[in-house]
Order: sequence, then C-alpha cells, then structure tokens
Amino acid sequence: MNETELYRIDRTVKQWLKTSRDFILAKMGENLKISQKTSRKDLVTNVDKENEKLIISKIRTFAPNSQILGEEGFGDQIRQTKGWVWVVDPIDGTMNFVKQRDHFAIMIALYVDGKGVLGYIYDVVNDQLFSGGPDLGVFQNEHLLPAPENVGLRNGLISLSGPMVIHDRFNFQKVAETSSGLRIYGSAGVEMAHLLKGEIVAYVSYLKPWDFGAGKILAESLGLAVSTVDGKPLDMLSSDFVMVATVQAQQDILPIIGSNV
Amino acid sequence: MNETELYRIDRTVKQWLKTSRDFILAKMGENLKISQKTSRKDLVTNVDKENEKLIISKIRTFAPNSQILGEEGFGDQIRQTKGWVWVVDPIDGTMNFVKQRDHFAIMIALYVDGKGVLGYIYDVVNDQLFSGGPDLGVFQNEHLLPAPENVGLRNGLISLSGPMVIHDRFNFQKVAETSSGLRIYGSAGVEMAHLLKGEIVAYVSYLKPWDFGAGKILAESLGLAVSTVDGKPLDMLSSDFVMVATVQAQQDILPIIGSNV
Repeated sequence: MNETELYRIDRTVKQWLKTSRDFILAKMGENLKISQKTSRKDLVTNVDKENEKLIISKIRTFAPNSQILGEEGFGDQIRQTKGWVWVVDPIDGTMNFVKQRDHFAIMIALYVDGKGVLGYIYDVVNDQLFSGGPDLGVFQNEHLLPAPENVGLRNGLISLSGPMVIHDRFNFQKVAETSSGLRIYGSAGVEMAHLLKGEIVAYVSYLKPWDFGAGKILAESLGLAVSTVDGKPLDMLSSDFVMVATVQAQQDILPIIGSNV
Repeated sequence: MNETELYRIDRTVKQWLKTSRDFILAKMGENLKISQKTSRKDLVTNVDKENEKLIISKIRTFAPNSQILGEEGFGDQIRQTKGWVWVVDPIDGTMNFVKQRDHFAIMIALYVDGKGVLGYIYDVVNDQLFSGGPDLGVFQNEHLLPAPENVGLRNGLISLSGPMVIHDRFNFQKVAETSSGLRIYGSAGVEMAHLLKGEIVAYVSYLKPWDFGAGKILAESLGLAVSTVDGKPLDMLSSDFVMVATVQAQQDILPIIGSNV
C-alpha cells in the first residue's frame, strides 16, 4: 500500500473515531442497558453494540470488500486473513466503562493479507489517541512516540490481569515480584497505551483478537515483542495468553515461567 | 475554626501546591537522583526531598506554631496531636514518578487537635486537585464532588496493593474475586482519587500516616468509611493496614477476612 493510500485511510479512521467518541460521550449521560456475556465480570452494554454497528457501517461504505472481526458479533465470520481485515473493539474495558465511566478505549486495526498495517487505540474520555503502524510510525495524538527504552523486568513495572495474579497462572506471582511493581488497569487498550509510552515494560493477559489486534500493530511498530505467553507467534484469529513486552523484559520473563505453561 | 479562616488556609495551600507542581514539572526534565530507602521497591528522589523542604518552609512561615509530619523526615518528631499538625507527602507514588513520570500525587493534610480539617491530593501531571474537608465539602478542581453511591463489594471495583494480592494477606484474594474486578494503580493518592470519584468501592493497603492523612479527611467528608483493615479506628500517627471503602463495601469485606487478621 502506498503512503498516499495509508494517509487517506488514517484520516478516515480518525474521523470515525471522533464520531464514535461523540456518540459514546452523549450516551454516557443516559442509563446504560447492561447485560452479562459469559459471566457477571464479562459485560456488554447497548453502547458497545451501537458503537460497533456504527463503526462497521462506516467500514462497509469505505471499503466494501473488507472482512470485519467485531467483538460484539456484528461483523463477519472470518476463517482466513486474505485481503483487508478490520478488527474492531467498540469499547475495550467495558467494566471500567460501566463502573468508572472512564479508562476504556475504542480499538480498530487494519490487517492486509495477515500483516498489520494500521492500529488505533482511543482513550475516549481523556481524548488520547494512539495511532499508526509500521510505515507511518506511532503517534499519541499529534506527537510522534519514540521507541520505549529496552528496560528489563527488574527495573520496570508490569501489568497483569487480576485472575492471572490471583490464581498464579504460569508462575506470574514470581514474575510480578521480580518486577519493580505490579499494576492492573482493567482495559487491554489502556495497558497497551502505558506500554507504548514506556510506563510499563510488560503486559500479560488472556486476550481475544479484538483485544490485541490494534495493540499488536502499534507495539511491534515501536520494537516491542508481541507473542503468546510462552514466546510463540500469535495467531490473529485466535484467543490466547498474550505477552507484550520490551525485548529484554520478554527475555527475563520466559525463564521464570519456564515449564509452567 | 471559622469559615473565613478555613478559606484563607485553603487558598494558601493551593498556592503552595501550584508552586510545587511547577517545581516538579521543571525537575522532571532533568536526571533524577534516585536512592533506595528500605528496599529496591521503596524509592526516594532528590525531587521528593526538595519538594518536602519547599512545602515545609511554606508551612513554617505561614503557621510557625504547627507540628509537621513529613515523609522524608524534614518535619518534626511528633508524639501527640494537640494543636495544628500538618501531614506532608511531597511525592506519593514515587515508583510511578520514577518509572512513569505520571500517576503520582502531592498530599497535604491539616489536623487540629487530632481532627481532620483540610486535605489535598494533587495529581500533578494531570493537574487534578482533590481538596476540602468536613466543613468546606470536597472538590475536584472547581467541581464539588457528590458523595459516592453506597455500592457493595460485589458490584464495585476494588484496589489493593500488589503484595497484599500476591501473598493473599487476610484472605484478600477472595475479597478481590468477590468484587467486580481488581485494580492496582500504585499510588495511595491516585487510589484515593478513584474512591472519591466513586470509580472503585474500596482500597486496602499497608499505609503510613502521610499516605492516608489527606485521603482520610476527604473520604470521611464524603461519607466513606476509613478504618484499619479489621474495621477499627485509625491512629493518625501510626502505620497500619488501612481500608477506605463505601460503608456497604466495608460491611461486605469484613466477614470475608473474618479471623484472618
């Protein structure tokens, strides 16, 4: 894809995101219709669903030959990654959205023939947009982000999902204790944003494709390592325990989890 | 203390905080001089120390007959709480300050004869000041905060310190699992701010007087329960496991920790 085309898509996606932000902020003043998906800790609201429909309708108009993978199921059933594939999470961190009305993100990614091209993580309330890809570079709003320093586990903060810590999955309590400190923010998008800014050196959680689709593109564009928890390549259509980390932190973590995977 | 006097103090402390903010932001561009206090996870920097000296010098000039309890030791040795006692944390969340250059707070509290009068939690980078007390009400910048809804544990998010979760102190893994989700932000001031906004329903951590001095005043002014982890009154001169929670969440948590304290 040439640069002109990339910038055209980039401008367009940013317009969708602004539209979705206005929509979500307006809806936040109303009562939410909240329902449970797989458990009481896995929520969806009318705003998640309506925002996914909104974004998908924009994509269908803009790029009708695309496949779309959407969290709330209004996209397509995707079995192969040929051509343009959009990955959409209309509200990442729905629990934060419901309980905090803050600290959640809209995420959109574009893959072409399986290769990450553009990623977007939009912290809606704080109006912080992380965007870009391997060709455009990575931006926080208008500011080009430098690659995070290659800090190791011991000298950096790590973010994990609550259940991974509580149940000590893969020896991650030891990993957390080896780090400079544990943080939990409750939204893959928010955690990825902290990583891109170099505020944490690793993030590990069980994630679905819409949770990591955009973050993978942005993180790899800044030289971060993105893999399964045991250091293997990620399949962009599968759910898995995902590790995003500096190269050094990944090297530090893998021996600690050792044969626990 | 009459209202005129309260407002005079309030205006003055806010000026100190703005001065300290400018000082810290200017210093953040320079190399920090970082040293360890009790462990590699308990840091202090030249900025913590210099900002404490700055605030203490302001207090000495403004109210020379006060006692001052400062984290970095530039205040007084305090054995009783008669008269005016200021509690100063020049940078709360020093690990965040060092690793993230964000998500830390300046905290100042004024107690008179042991009673909390005014509290200040200042999220420096994001310029969000939580201020007030039992007589003035509690503000986020210029916005008067309503009392958080009295949400129970099951329907709210909880924040704990990393070590409490990892070592399952007092059965807090069970508490976290009973909640809607676990969060860890890494600064008592930041956690307290989330509580004041109603974004979490409980926060429990081992805290020193400067970690909870301001938060206790602000939280109690909004009807939140502040106690030791087993529901007993806090001594403002002692370190302890501290629980700040909605009344309902406190009632939900106490039976779960039961005899584990």
